[in-house]
Amino acid sequence: MYVDLGNGLASVASPGVSRESLERLDERVGRAHERIERGRKNEEFGYAALNLPQGADAGAIERAVAPLKDCESVLTIGIGGSALGAATISEALGLAGTHVLDNVDPAWVRETLAGLDLAGTAVHVVSRSGTTAETLANFLIVREAFEGAGVDWTERTIVTTGERGPLRTLADRHDLPVLSVPEGVPGRFSALSSVGLVPAAIRGGDVEDVLAGAREGTGVGDIEGSLFETPAYAYGAATYALSERGAAINAVLPYAEGLERFAEWFAQLWAESLGKEGLGQLPARALGATDQHSQLQLYRAGPRNTMVTFVRPRERPELTIPDTDFEALSYLGATGLKALIDAEFEATEASLAAAGRPSLRIEIDRLDARSVGALLYDMELACVLVGELMGVETFEQPAVEWGKRATRGLLGAEGEFPESEAVGEKNQLAVEPDR
Amino acid sequence: MYVDLGNGLASVASPGVSRESLERLDERVGRAHERIERGRKNEEFGYAALNLPQGADAGAIERAVAPLKDCESVLTIGIGGSALGAATISEALGLAGTHVLDNVDPAWVRETLAGLDLAGTAVHVVSRSGTTAETLANFLIVREAFEGAGVDWTERTIVTTGERGPLRTLADRHDLPVLSVPEGVPGRFSALSSVGLVPAAIRGGDVEDVLAGAREGTGVGDIEGSLFETPAYAYGAATYALSERGAAINAVLPYAEGLERFAEWFAQLWAESLGKEGLGQLPARALGATDQHSQLQLYRAGPRNTMVTFVRPRERPELTIPDTDFEALSYLGATGLKALIDAEFEATEASLAAAGRPSLRIEIDRLDARSVGALLYDMELACVLVGELMGVETFEQPAVEWGKRATRGLLGAEGEFPESEAVGEKNQLAVEPDR
Repeated sequence: MYVDLGNGLASVASPGVSRESLERLDERVGRAHERIERGRKNEEFGYAALNLPQGADAGAIERAVAPLKDCESVLTIGIGGSALGAATISEALGLAGTHVLDNVDPAWVRETLAGLDLAGTAVHVVSRSGTTAETLANFLIVREAFEGAGVDWTERTIVTTGERGPLRTLADRHDLPVLSVPEGVPGRFSALSSVGLVPAAIRGGDVEDVLAGAREGTGVGDIEGSLFETPAYAYGAATYALSERGAAINAVLPYAEGLERFAEWFAQLWAESLGKEGLGQLPARALGATDQHSQLQLYRAGPRNTMVTFVRPRERPELTIPDTDFEALSYLGATGLKALIDAEFEATEASLAAAGRPSLRIEIDRLDARSVGALLYDMELACVLVGELMGVETFEQPAVEWGKRATRGLLGAEGEFPESEAVGEKNQLAVEPDR
Repeated sequence: MYVDLGNGLASVASPGVSRESLERLDERVGRAHERIERGRKNEEFGYAALNLPQGADAGAIERAVAPLKDCESVLTIGIGGSALGAATISEALGLAGTHVLDNVDPAWVRETLAGLDLAGTAVHVVSRSGTTAETLANFLIVREAFEGAGVDWTERTIVTTGERGPLRTLADRHDLPVLSVPEGVPGRFSALSSVGLVPAAIRGGDVEDVLAGAREGTGVGDIEGSLFETPAYAYGAATYALSERGAAINAVLPYAEGLERFAEWFAQLWAESLGKEGLGQLPARALGATDQHSQLQLYRAGPRNTMVTFVRPRERPELTIPDTDFEALSYLGATGLKALIDAEFEATEASLAAAGRPSLRIEIDRLDARSVGALLYDMELACVLVGELMGVETFEQPAVEWGKRATRGLLGAEGEFPESEAVGEKNQLAVEPDR
């Protein structure tokens, strides 16, 4: 991962951070780095995620999925961190036939199942606790669909879960292959484990290369504790500084369709890790060049509360634009889509700088397994750094528990979950059409 | 469209708006309404969009697409407002076989084309000016792909464009069916015209019902100038009030996969219409229930700068969850996905209220043509109201021009477009991996 902080400097943008401030901040980065290294060494909760690229066993994943390699589709059943990493990696590698059931919309679940040839579909069920309501409800429905189609689901299913729990019990009962969610790793930091890698492995992605990229990107084991040396720290520290100076929003704008899911993965990482105690930065997921025609007006002329994170591959295939009988477009005739999207990337970045709006540039070599592994790893490390600088509990997500308990109460266990009583007390001010 | 402002009240949330403030604001809503009505009556630029449901000729659209009704796929080539409305309506109506080329990523364009059976594919090219670089580049590539496949593209293509321009010329030269972009309507307000309706019409959506829904939803022609009477004004005024009180971010959280694109459409409408002169509110697109496992931690415990807009259909199909051998999940056995997603919706809404975070609730009857037409129309009207209350030029988007000119310069006309010179002057502070 390559980072360029140039357009986030105070000499360009407001909010912006001066070089002098970055130099002062670098001392704190050094201390945060020591904390991170200690956490990694001791395999502390959360920090352990940063050891996944060395610890993950690509061979074990490959062996577990070997019987499923002939499947043309793989359906991941999970939600949040149990789905986004898998979707991000599969999409970035351009692997066809990878699907995700990460919602409980009945119409959509039915339609997704109807679109699959179940005889050629592998199922990957992911839940650390083995009790996630959305995931297990969907799994029960999928299992029934397989039975209805006369396909033995036990021959097609692989499970990734914790050491205990109902999903582990079920897997043991039906003799399903099971991979373990790594210990000490929150879901949103688990992409570089079986949680994120199984679907890619089934569909022929090079899982070992993803891990190798993650190891090499920043130079794991040999990370320099300076934002001027380590790209992940450069991105994290500059984003923290811009956030402190007013960038409440971080609009992530990848210029590649294959990174659309990456922006979603990043959004979970950033929001759930840093959004606590009144702190945090809203990750706004976007897509270049498309959102130039949607969000750019606001980024350039709206409130000075937004920084943009540009992301692009340095190399990509070309697709020539045929010669044209549109005179107004003859300037495109000599070029191709790669030249066009790259020109739009650079012009949009410059247009923000010209308006004094901050942006940071992230580049990877190309959309391949190594670069994607490096990108995910470095963004995780950047996030952990920002958590240290903010002083929050990066690896917890306490604010989501209330809603889970209220849901449980609404579904028939009111006594145990008093939160559900508050749902009925809703304060109303309804405005409805007059018919 | 039904709106409930209850959880945006100051008695629930901070930021929040008191009933008294809403009553005072309603006087301004009344005056803004008069301005809007005058603009509609005189067909003024932008305001004219609010007359589309009466003016759009569903019959003309149906006649134009009649020869393409046997196509199993329709590919819309457009970007921004020329694509999002079409995608939103097609997706909300659950129409299969609708695809959009709204980006110039070469790998993705190639892959999209490879996935289509061109002999059964209709093409809808949309550009008001007829000069949009991304759209025409993609159209040239698609045309060549049809030629390569031995399929006559002139038999498969329908064009929506302005009265003049290269795309109009080309359509005339090849005798293609052409529909006109309505006069006086910016792209982001054009969903309820041929721009947004053609793909749905080709794939069997009930275009007349979409328009009827838009006419009936708010009661066009008989809109009350009060936020307490008109749902669109209720949503717009409350959102404006919350924005004034600190809600810099509007997280749009539809609880239906079929409304995922709606959140994107809304994001363009909101960002491009209101993001100017340092004003505006960032529309963060999200999706329920999925984002409970991603963004909710931040919405509930992060900075008090975010309001959530919940959107859901009141009715949807049920999908029973089979009886289970997971003991921990036996509470799901008696229920279904509809009950589950509805419980999660209500629990999540209540969980924000319990944390004192503002939200507004929007409901539609169900995901059908009438309700979707009403939803889009009412959100457009809400946006126009907010523009009036903010005092901005809702229908312009001047800040995107700089980047378009710089792109043009980078592609070989530097002299004409001096903006491109600034691109080369980029201020760099690069941090790269040490290899």
